[in-house]
Order: sequence, then C-alpha cells, then structure tokens
Amino acid sequence: MDDLKSSLSFAQKEVDKTIKSLLPNGKGIEKKLYEAINYSILSMGKRLRPFLVIQSSKLFDVDEKYAFRVASSIEMIHAYSLIHDDLPSMDNDSLRRGLPTTHKKFNEATAILAGDALLTLSFQVLSDNLTHSDPRIRCELINELAKAAGTSGMVTGQMMDIEAENKKLGIGVITRIQRLKTGALIAFACNSGSILGRAEKKFKFALQGFAHDIGLAYQIRDDLLDATSTTKKLGKKANKDKKAGKKNFVSILGKDRAKKQLEFLANQAIKHLGVFDQKADMLRDIARFIVERNK
Amino acid sequence: MDDLKSSLSFAQKEVDKTIKSLLPNGKGIEKKLYEAINYSILSMGKRLRPFLVIQSSKLFDVDEKYAFRVASSIEMIHAYSLIHDDLPSMDNDSLRRGLPTTHKKFNEATAILAGDALLTLSFQVLSDNLTHSDPRIRCELINELAKAAGTSGMVTGQMMDIEAENKKLGIGVITRIQRLKTGALIAFACNSGSILGRAEKKFKFALQGFAHDIGLAYQIRDDLLDATSTTKKLGKKANKDKKAGKKNFVSILGKDRAKKQLEFLANQAIKHLGVFDQKADMLRDIARFIVERNK
Repeated sequence: MDDLKSSLSFAQKEVDKTIKSLLPNGKGIEKKLYEAINYSILSMGKRLRPFLVIQSSKLFDVDEKYAFRVASSIEMIHAYSLIHDDLPSMDNDSLRRGLPTTHKKFNEATAILAGDALLTLSFQVLSDNLTHSDPRIRCELINELAKAAGTSGMVTGQMMDIEAENKKLGIGVITRIQRLKTGALIAFACNSGSILGRAEKKFKFALQGFAHDIGLAYQIRDDLLDATSTTKKLGKKANKDKKAGKKNFVSILGKDRAKKQLEFLANQAIKHLGVFDQKADMLRDIARFIVERNK
Repeated sequence: MDDLKSSLSFAQKEVDKTIKSLLPNGKGIEKKLYEAINYSILSMGKRLRPFLVIQSSKLFDVDEKYAFRVASSIEMIHAYSLIHDDLPSMDNDSLRRGLPTTHKKFNEATAILAGDALLTLSFQVLSDNLTHSDPRIRCELINELAKAAGTSGMVTGQMMDIEAENKKLGIGVITRIQRLKTGALIAFACNSGSILGRAEKKFKFALQGFAHDIGLAYQIRDDLLDATSTTKKLGKKANKDKKAGKKNFVSILGKDRAKKQLEFLANQAIKHLGVFDQKADMLRDIARFIVERNK
C-alpha cells in the first residue's frame, strides 16, 4: 500500500497544481467569490476521482497533462456538488473535511455562486484545446460528464436523496440513489481514461464494471463509517443518516452483511481488471483501499 | 414592427419546441425536479437571447436547426440564472413573468437543483454533434458560453450585484455589473451566430459592437421600467432596486438622461450593423424594440 499512498499523494499534488492554474486569478472577480471558490476546492479532499482519471489514463498511455486537466475538471464538479449539497435547504451540513462548509464560512449566496462558477468552469476547461488536441474527444468528455452530473446522474441522485428522508426505502432504491448521486461521477472518472485513450471496447467495459463496483463499495464504506465513526475522525458529521431519518446500506443490511457486501464488491471490481496487466495495479490497490479507509 | 413581432413569435415557438425535445422526458427523474425544470424554462419568457442567436445566424446562412439548438442552450443558461438569482439568499423574489418563482412554487432545494440541471444540460446539448457537425465549432461555443456565464461574466456580475446593496456606486461600476450580469450572455447570443457561421472578423466585430450596445440599452430600459411601471404590468416586482437600496442607471442619471442614453445606444447599435445588408433588418428592429418595450 506504500505505492498507493505515494501515488495518491502524487495525484493530489499534481491535480492541486493544475486546479490552481485553472482557477480565476482573482483579477476582475469579487474577492468573496474568489475566496469561496479557492476555499471550497483547495481544502484538501482525498482526490479519489482525480486519481481514477490519472490511473485509468495510464492504462492507455495518455499524455499526463491531459489527464491532469480532466482530473481537475471532475474535481470542480465534485466540489460544486458538495457546496450545493451542504446548503441549509439541502443536507444542511456545517462541517466538511474538518472545516466549516462554504455557506458557513461565507454565506449562502456566495456558496451557491461559487458552486455555479465551478460547474461552469469545469466545462470551460474541458472545451479548451489544451485538454486534448482532438475536439471530438473534448466533446465526448463534455457530453459524458454532463450526463454523469445532470439529470441522468448526480442531480437526480441528490433530489432522490433529499426526498428519501423519512421514507421506508428498500435496497433497490437505495442502490439507485447511490448509483446516480455518487456512482455516476466515479464511473465518468474511470471512463474518461478510456475516452482520452480511445480504448478498445473490451477495456472500456472492464473499466465500467470496475467503476460500478467501487462506486457502490465506496458508498457502503461511507455508510459504515457514518454509523461507527465519530465526527472528529471523519471531519464531517457522523451518524447523519440515522438522525435525518434516512435509510442507507447499513440500516437496511446491518453492519455484518454490509461488510460482506463491501468485500464482495472489492473482489469483483478487481476481477474486472483481469484484462489489464500490472499497469492496473494501482487501480487494484484503490479497490482494497476503499474497503479499508477510515475517512 | 409587425415583421418583428411575427419573427419573435416564430423564434419563441421554434425554440420552445426544441427545448421541449431536449429536456429530460420524465422517465427516471424525480417528478418534482422534472416539473420544476419544465416550469422554469417553459413559462414563456420573451426569448430575446434565442431570437438574437437565430437572427445573427441568419446573417451567415447557418442551418436553422443548429441555431435552434444553440438558442435553446442559451435559454437554459438564462433560466438557470433566473432561478438561482430569485432565491431567498440572493434577490429573494417571489414573482417572475407573472408567476411564482421556482422556489416559491416548489421549494428551495428543488429550485437549486433545477438550476444546476439546466446549466449542465446546456453544455450537454452544445457538445452533441446534432448542434454542429464540426466538433471545433462545438468546443468554441462551449468555451465562449462558459466564459460568458462563469466568473468572467454572469456569476461575477451577480455576485457584484448582491454586494452592491446599500453602497454608493458610480456609473462606471454600475455599467460593469450590467456588462457582466446581463451583457455577457446577450453578447454570446450574437457571437454564437458568428461562431456557427465562421464569420469574417469585420462581421464578428460589428456584431460584438451591436451586442454591447443593445445589452446596455436593455438594462437601462429595465431600470426605467423598474422605476416607472407596476408589478402587475411587469409580471415581476417593480421599484425593486430602490427598495433594496441598489443604485441603477435611473437613480444615478435620472429618468431624462437615462432615456437619452437609451436612444443614443440604440442608434449606435444600429450603426454597427452598417456592414450588413437587409438581412440584418430584424436586428435593427430589435434595437428599436428594446427602447420601446413595456415589459
């Protein structure tokens, strides 16, 4: 796992550098908005999605500078979604990564606009010819990202999640919410490597299967941590779903079955990678990491 | 002006048809979100921006079906910006086009997500090869739209506008806010015709000058209507800026000078169109319409 750690921290460092170079430089933009954008996206996430972009791109020998830009644009979408999800009218969270959420640190209007700005900037970055020399590929990335982030994915997932409060939902609906709310963007992160690398279908499908399994595994681990860890350790509110009257994988399956399902999914994810040689080792490691992570 | 009226209503009809075909079909999407999206974008705006796309495209013999799609995607951005601007933490408006604003009709969370969905869908539409056969042109449209809508344009304009409350601002700052908040998207609407039609520089610049002038004229007319019309006639709250302690063109210049400036800008806009033949007559008419409109 030492390799994974250094690889994750490499991704984090390079992507943070790229994000900084892509953000507005502070001239001609309201200071508060500028600060809110920087605060939200540079407050040190795990950078899991960027890591998946970089590692899936490596499989097809994609130019690293292309991968860093796509990774940055996905992280912008991820940051925007967290800012908006944390708002009082949505999940009403005041803590994120151990820091006040954007609307707490600034105010609601600034948080909404910072989210809007990051969402918009993400597409601006992808459309730029520095992201790939072939405009066909840039358009495909934009199209797939928009599907993953919009009503075919994340936005609908968040809406369903809000509506799920105090409803008795079964495992089927919970799985669908996860697939849309967090799974779609994780899937796009893996898929972007295939798009950038013009991958053959069998490799593309293998990565899709992998992404599907780790996306679900990630959420189950999240639900386990929500149920068993503390606010201090997580850097965000613990035991949130129970308090909000929301069903999740742990409340439906129980801890033991959830853990078993998590193990099963990680193994299945790794099996999908059978079509790749040792170039996919970091992706194999990340599947294990998702099962074991503590925050 | 009869031609203009029928031309505006043609644009409205065609663009509404196109928008309907591009919106999610309601399957696999939360009912409330689906309804909020439809409600917000199909509640009959003037469709000024779509009209500008269609008319500027006509100058360069662009395929109408391309223009309709670009027009629709701009209208999605416009609708998203109105939904978010109307939110309680922003301008806190409860009336828009004579109807309850989206968060009043549904709720805040749904309104935020409907806005996010429309913003995302706009880029999805532009990236699709049905919008133009040349992916270079699609990327240019996306890049320019993102600049007009993001921190180089609309989002910063809205942030400055919120921060402007109870501040003594001069005409320079007010003009800058307008240019960013409403001018940038109007300018992109005109520019999109040049992009779709691969226009020569002299035509592109002429349209940019035109767009700049009508954008400013539009805002001055808005401020005049805000000061002199009624909530009933406007379909949105009248006398809003004064109540919010916001300076605008009318409060700084006074009604008479504002009217003169409006006339001056409309004439100057029309002068820019001197490089075009009678194909630009509808654009000439819209400049007059902006001066005379009553809502």
